[in-house]
Amino acid sequence: MAEESATAIIESVPNFSEGRRPHIIEAIVSEARRVRGVGVLDVLSDPDHNRTVVTLIGPPALVAEAVMAMTGAAARLIDMENHHGAHPRIGAMDVIPFVPGLNTTMEQCVELARSVGREIASTLGIPVYLYGEAASSPERRNLAYIRRGEYEALKEEIGRPDRLPDFGPPVLHPSAGATVVGARAPLVAMNVNLGTTDLFVARVIARKIRESSGGLPAVMAKAVALVERGMVQVTMNLTDYRVTSPLTVLKTITQEAEAHGVSVVESEIVGLVPMDVLVDLARQSLAAKGFSAAQVLETHLKERPRE
Amino acid sequence: MAEESATAIIESVPNFSEGRRPHIIEAIVSEARRVRGVGVLDVLSDPDHNRTVVTLIGPPALVAEAVMAMTGAAARLIDMENHHGAHPRIGAMDVIPFVPGLNTTMEQCVELARSVGREIASTLGIPVYLYGEAASSPERRNLAYIRRGEYEALKEEIGRPDRLPDFGPPVLHPSAGATVVGARAPLVAMNVNLGTTDLFVARVIARKIRESSGGLPAVMAKAVALVERGMVQVTMNLTDYRVTSPLTVLKTITQEAEAHGVSVVESEIVGLVPMDVLVDLARQSLAAKGFSAAQVLETHLKERPRE
Repeated sequence: MAEESATAIIESVPNFSEGRRPHIIEAIVSEARRVRGVGVLDVLSDPDHNRTVVTLIGPPALVAEAVMAMTGAAARLIDMENHHGAHPRIGAMDVIPFVPGLNTTMEQCVELARSVGREIASTLGIPVYLYGEAASSPERRNLAYIRRGEYEALKEEIGRPDRLPDFGPPVLHPSAGATVVGARAPLVAMNVNLGTTDLFVARVIARKIRESSGGLPAVMAKAVALVERGMVQVTMNLTDYRVTSPLTVLKTITQEAEAHGVSVVESEIVGLVPMDVLVDLARQSLAAKGFSAAQVLETHLKERPRE
Repeated sequence: MAEESATAIIESVPNFSEGRRPHIIEAIVSEARRVRGVGVLDVLSDPDHNRTVVTLIGPPALVAEAVMAMTGAAARLIDMENHHGAHPRIGAMDVIPFVPGLNTTMEQCVELARSVGREIASTLGIPVYLYGEAASSPERRNLAYIRRGEYEALKEEIGRPDRLPDFGPPVLHPSAGATVVGARAPLVAMNVNLGTTDLFVARVIARKIRESSGGLPAVMAKAVALVERGMVQVTMNLTDYRVTSPLTVLKTITQEAEAHGVSVVESEIVGLVPMDVLVDLARQSLAAKGFSAAQVLETHLKERPRE
């Protein structure tokens, strides 16, 4: 692992495949809470996705310790043979991204992803794929490529040359499946919920807006049914909010939905966003081009020395 | 002055009556820059207003020192007998608000306003009015009430019982006029510029939206001509952004302007806003009701201990 400066802070957003049973969710999250110096900032469970997204922050070595412990617990407590959910997944601890925070570089996140991936494979016997900036090939930068066909297809195909893991055995862990570990820039995870149960509408909209089918740049989108809430959802990652902002996404989806006679019920921002996203939002939604982060009071409060 | 804790930080937003001559503006602002420990965060000069708004931040005693020095320089360098501008004013250093920042209470801001007001009167011979939370009567909480008729009327009326200053002589300073000092909660100072030179349109809109004429609650609004920019402006203070947000204001003005066949060119946020304003904006503009300040990365980065 890279040498850390005294105040290096990293973010990690582990996603595991349980979003329904509170005692299982808490048992996995508590592994992170137990690591002193790591903050568990957000825990978002979705019963339809059957998935929980946790946001951790802290010094790199401690965050690594926390996600390792969570992965061990997920492997013990989740059986992928009996897992069903609307969100694509290949394992109990499905994805572990590392994101640069304070005084940390992308290179440090890449190194951390590799060392944590190696350790998951060697200590838990789980095959590990590297993605994002840590990927071992251009295709594997893309999470959707690694997860194609999900757990069920990967089980059959993991021995194929193009599906061999970066670390660990060429066979899925019998209950925990596989895990994807990587490094990425901060992204905005955003869901837009539509007032219909017609999944077709969400699918058409997701296809319309995602970059891979010619939609908005730097947008990944997928349709999911929120059966328990009686809605459908366009679930997205905005991989560069400076290129396509949350407001542009919402406006585009609202227009498309209206064309289908469907209304937008609400949107959700999942996990953390850099303050810059909000500053951009002020510029865009208030037509206040000159607005800057320097005008946010809190930006300055933290910088004042004690006197 | 109240006892200060080690990290007490206060904000002050002195407004002085010069927005055209850069050397005068810089001479006044440099008095604040000279005080070590005070941050000059923003300097916004408007030639049409003929006024400059400065945002200072720092420990209360040092911020008080900085605004005193600026007031002395403004009194030396600005002659109110020859001042003209679109914005109401009664003095060279026109208004000095103190705003609670970090570990400071409104009570401390009120005490600071009173002590600074007393000092301006005694050392510079300038009559001082207290306003906002520091006001000596309910009417004087309102800046517009104190400034009614502006410099020119006050010159004649200052001896009347209802216009006597809180500190200093019952006569205007020969060049510096009078100064208003007070304490207030954070407000959002916002301008919306319209694509017309017809001041009538801005006047009608200002009247329509301000609370005092039955418009939006917690909104103060005024029309000014931006002659140099060939536009008119609705200039506002949103005294409680939780009651009426910047986005609601912009939407209302946009509607009203469209009814007059006029477009909104841009808006301006003047000086600092609490991060809460941006969090509210995300909730409102993205229909993301559940969004919270805890989801802003920077909120957490500053809280981590060094390890």
